Amino acid sequence: MRFAVVAGSTATARIEGISAAGADPAVMAHTPSADCEIVAYGRPVRSPVVPVSPSGCPTPAVVTRAVRELARFETVAIDAGLAKSTAAPTVAVGEGSGRDVRTARAVPEARAIFAAAEEYGRALPDDDLVIGETIPGGTTTARCVLTALGERQATSSSLAENPVALKQRVVDEALDTAGIARGGAAGAPIEAVRAVGDPVLAAVAGLVAGATAAGTEVTLAGGTQLCAAAALARHAGVDAPLSLATTSFLAADESADVEGLASDLDLDLTVTDPGFDQESHPALDAYVAGEAKEGVGMGGALALADQAGIPMADVRDRVVAVHDRLLATEPRAEP
Amino acid sequence: MRFAVVAGSTATARIEGISAAGADPAVMAHTPSADCEIVAYGRPVRSPVVPVSPSGCPTPAVVTRAVRELARFETVAIDAGLAKSTAAPTVAVGEGSGRDVRTARAVPEARAIFAAAEEYGRALPDDDLVIGETIPGGTTTARCVLTALGERQATSSSLAENPVALKQRVVDEALDTAGIARGGAAGAPIEAVRAVGDPVLAAVAGLVAGATAAGTEVTLAGGTQLCAAAALARHAGVDAPLSLATTSFLAADESADVEGLASDLDLDLTVTDPGFDQESHPALDAYVAGEAKEGVGMGGALALADQAGIPMADVRDRVVAVHDRLLATEPRAEP
Repeated sequence: MRFAVVAGSTATARIEGISAAGADPAVMAHTPSADCEIVAYGRPVRSPVVPVSPSGCPTPAVVTRAVRELARFETVAIDAGLAKSTAAPTVAVGEGSGRDVRTARAVPEARAIFAAAEEYGRALPDDDLVIGETIPGGTTTARCVLTALGERQATSSSLAENPVALKQRVVDEALDTAGIARGGAAGAPIEAVRAVGDPVLAAVAGLVAGATAAGTEVTLAGGTQLCAAAALARHAGVDAPLSLATTSFLAADESADVEGLASDLDLDLTVTDPGFDQESHPALDAYVAGEAKEGVGMGGALALADQAGIPMADVRDRVVAVHDRLLATEPRAEP
Repeated sequence: MRFAVVAGSTATARIEGISAAGADPAVMAHTPSADCEIVAYGRPVRSPVVPVSPSGCPTPAVVTRAVRELARFETVAIDAGLAKSTAAPTVAVGEGSGRDVRTARAVPEARAIFAAAEEYGRALPDDDLVIGETIPGGTTTARCVLTALGERQATSSSLAENPVALKQRVVDEALDTAGIARGGAAGAPIEAVRAVGDPVLAAVAGLVAGATAAGTEVTLAGGTQLCAAAALARHAGVDAPLSLATTSFLAADESADVEGLASDLDLDLTVTDPGFDQESHPALDAYVAGEAKEGVGMGGALALADQAGIPMADVRDRVVAVHDRLLATEPRAEP
């Protein structure tokens, strides 16, 4: 089994009020790079920040790292186009940020990213592949893509209050700029992601296509962004069984509809509750309050812990330990 | 503990008769990239070849992978300047091949590579770091560097018959081109590696300097190339304790003098014998006949197996299994 975190960036995240994946827009650009380092090393190494939301909710990379330390699975960071350097070991399938979906073709290199990820996915020797993501602004691009494909527009948010109206305005503007009607890109996934998606969606869809073609079982570890990637894969003709493993926080998001999306896209849904409400700690409380919800493969990591018989109390203890370690240590590298 | 394989390339390897790290020079360019994939995945993924010597001796990456499967330690590939793309997850500290030491400044970017590796090494959170290498032609550049620093010129070879006279001609020509006398670069390690070294030596020396500065215990996993990197670190002022873990094949090489080098450079030497002479198999016999000897951290991996109490008979069984898997499966990616 291999656990891939596909990381990238989109200028769409800079739209005011869109994302909580970083304390402010300047810091947010480092979030995916720092997330990959936290998963790989347990803390930032080159990245100058520990990603937290504006209210202080720690990145879900902390949870994925915690489970990784307990279950000891192998991870790989897939660089679909990081804005900032990372010291995490990466496999590159793309280069450069996606553009703001409102103003331009969002991912000019969508076909090349899809193809590189597909080739990599097909060549992997693993029986099982779990795929997570880290890209601020990703639920908005996911909503754009689902709309362009004519799928259910039911995306979640890293914010406790999903800014649905704002997102819908962005979606409308993006599709208008692209000249794509709702459902106008059905059956044309590369066109959809090139026009209104992000580099991570292109890479995840390519990975899914390649890995399933080689007989690898794929679990999408996340929420509605992973549903959008699954939709791209389905519209690319992938009919292999696919699983979706998400968190109870995401499943409880009434502004989204992960069950509906999973059903539409024929995804075998697993929801895992880490029981964060059973204790009180700054690393856990924000999730209970509805922040972050998912990301960096958190739902998939929790499902792996569950399958491995690791008690959720142990997971919570380790989440707290990883979190406290993060806050106690500044990155050792001087800028 | 983290196990780093520093990978790169030098045009010096193209000198006829210098290296056995590939069946022929065109294929040899892929060797470090393929070695990293074998360590990471158990087989080539993007690389079109399984590295073998001209006589068919499998790459020592097979041994490192075998031990990794048994001892389950974490590996990272450090890209100091690969000539060919790799699908292994990498941390880049350099870019581009080193040049032929006879004709030009061998590593123009030596200072930048050293600095990037030093920063990375200093930032790593690990208590222990094991460092191996993969770079065809590396024993020749190591000999050049040892000569420029005024250290013992006692380098081994991946060939059963060390082409010492040929190497010495290359060394003489390289130092002549650089205008450096024997010992002329003592105390000036960046100058030595820039003039007559290779990118991997620059990166390993930087890693050692950074990691030891942060209190990480460093084991150099290899033979006389790692001694040259240690010499660079010592000449850069590193006085922390350093270990060298190598194979019995390398230690038995009478054309080299790893014990003398280790003593000169104050390296705590461990020699591990995997007992390949106790059975007969194509994956093992070439080592017994004196080919390859070391590389891709093999000596360090064997020492880790020993420390973990893994019987060498289990290591041999796994080496055979990894080797047979490699030969049975062509890379799944179509070119």
